[in-house]
Amino acid sequence: MSQLQDCDVKKCRGRPKVFDRDAALDKALTLFWTHGYEGTSLSDLVAATGAKAPTLYAEFVNKEGLFRAAMERYVEKFSAWREAALGDEQLPVAQAIEAYFRATAACFTERNSPGGCFFICTSTALSAASAEVAAMLQQQHQSQEHALSDFLLTRQQRGELSAEVNISALARYLGCMLQGMSVRAREGAPREDLDSIIDALMAMWPTLTGLCQAKP
Amino acid sequence: MSQLQDCDVKKCRGRPKVFDRDAALDKALTLFWTHGYEGTSLSDLVAATGAKAPTLYAEFVNKEGLFRAAMERYVEKFSAWREAALGDEQLPVAQAIEAYFRATAACFTERNSPGGCFFICTSTALSAASAEVAAMLQQQHQSQEHALSDFLLTRQQRGELSAEVNISALARYLGCMLQGMSVRAREGAPREDLDSIIDALMAMWPTLTGLCQAKP
Repeated sequence: MSQLQDCDVKKCRGRPKVFDRDAALDKALTLFWTHGYEGTSLSDLVAATGAKAPTLYAEFVNKEGLFRAAMERYVEKFSAWREAALGDEQLPVAQAIEAYFRATAACFTERNSPGGCFFICTSTALSAASAEVAAMLQQQHQSQEHALSDFLLTRQQRGELSAEVNISALARYLGCMLQGMSVRAREGAPREDLDSIIDALMAMWPTLTGLCQAKP
Repeated sequence: MSQLQDCDVKKCRGRPKVFDRDAALDKALTLFWTHGYEGTSLSDLVAATGAKAPTLYAEFVNKEGLFRAAMERYVEKFSAWREAALGDEQLPVAQAIEAYFRATAACFTERNSPGGCFFICTSTALSAASAEVAAMLQQQHQSQEHALSDFLLTRQQRGELSAEVNISALARYLGCMLQGMSVRAREGAPREDLDSIIDALMAMWPTLTGLCQAKP
């Protein structure tokens, strides 16, 4: 009985809660990242964000709208930070790539977030019913590989990479490494696991960019 | 009315259907591979396999049992075929690795199957409620990387790889490439995309295994 009274008192106490959009999006992002789009129900989202369903509908229209907003939050929080290394014009090409990979490893294994890349984790196991969400994710994902390829092309034009380097093949190879790193992080690999892979990649960078010819 | 009669006639016609375990498993495998463990319901499985629910329960106990059997079917159909390249003692180490990667690329982009690796596709977006399934997948997945590392170790002992090569680091690097290839295949990358990545990897093989020192 006294417990019930406590609850009633709590409900009435203080100012009415203000809806904190960013905090709600952070909770929604974690949920989608962990369980995927289809594995996350609206009632899960209501429970996690602490917001009422009508508030979520008013702000985001539907689950897809909330997913889109969570995705934008991810880009703002993580992708932008990772890609900053590519925008630093002072860094030589190899160092910029290494900084980008190290930042990615840190991001993928960050303890306060689910492991791996949000786009990769949520894009597997989508049913045909979620074609629009799949297209949204694929577009975001391709834009990451484009950022890498644009960076390499700019550096080639500045003469930092040989004109013979096939930029799209190089971007594809690096993209594949990042995708693999995401899978490993998702499966619980620690940062050192990813860092050791980056060590090997950077040791091969001269070969990869054609400066070193393998012995016959 | 005549439609109803037709249905009744159809129901009684011919011999009673014999349950084809392998055919049912193939259908279940495709479903789990496409939508993941949680994204596949028992009613989806009943509809896809054409078997009645009591038949499925009698054969596989529950959804987890059916998933386990589908996983074993995958290993039997695909993993065994891919790993055959590693068991061919006549192939030099580089050619065996290349054959393994090419077989993997073919398997991941096979038109009659969902893209990518079954273990990777189904292991993302699993909720905490499916901890046992997650453990099952992780074990299978680790056993693939162990197969690779056992192969490399044997070849090192035979003197085909320098004693200085760090086998676990090399297996980790190669495993990461395979995981990345799975993600790309799942996102619709054609076989040529994966083959171009394998071309780059094999061109770097001498560096990767320490035969080539990068120019300072």
